[in-house]
Amino acid sequence: MATVPGDPVITVFRSRLRPEAQAEYESMAQRMLELASAMPGFVELKTFVADDGERVSLVTFADAASHAAWRDHPEHRIAQRLGRDRFYASFDISVCRPERVRRFPE
Amino acid sequence: MATVPGDPVITVFRSRLRPEAQAEYESMAQRMLELASAMPGFVELKTFVADDGERVSLVTFADAASHAAWRDHPEHRIAQRLGRDRFYASFDISVCRPERVRRFPE
Repeated sequence: MATVPGDPVITVFRSRLRPEAQAEYESMAQRMLELASAMPGFVELKTFVADDGERVSLVTFADAASHAAWRDHPEHRIAQRLGRDRFYASFDISVCRPERVRRFPE
Repeated sequence: MATVPGDPVITVFRSRLRPEAQAEYESMAQRMLELASAMPGFVELKTFVADDGERVSLVTFADAASHAAWRDHPEHRIAQRLGRDRFYASFDISVCRPERVRRFPE
């Protein structure tokens, strides 16, 4: 199945924060949510936390072009560098294309 | 980019539970984790919760064949029906193939 330009793109962004970074991180995360949600093609950004403290943010854009525009946004690029330098102990980003979707209720 | 049989498959399983179903659900979820983790190709199953109570389970199998074998496992099929009948207020399942992965530290 080939990637279609109009398919939605889901980024599965798993991370662990450095304990000392929490407050400064929250401020940056809030700013990134504001920026992302103003981008064309933005669908959703939502964060979930596991019992062991690992976090996952699911970021959905309507298509590959709008996903790429957000990935390359200059202020987002700065935040990505800050993330590696100061906020994250680790992260694991998978950029995904849903191949099959099921919903309930349908 | 075509789907390669050996690519990992991530299922992003978002759900909201019916409030009265919590205890019975936990028991079934534990059993499903036991079953899934014994399947060939199982990589990981982990659940995260958002502030508003929405849950997401990330389920990773090594390839499409092992993912399909888990999806079609007879006891899992029964659990899927129970889920719709008794446990879930709503769910949203996206079966995904990672197209790009980044990790830190690399």
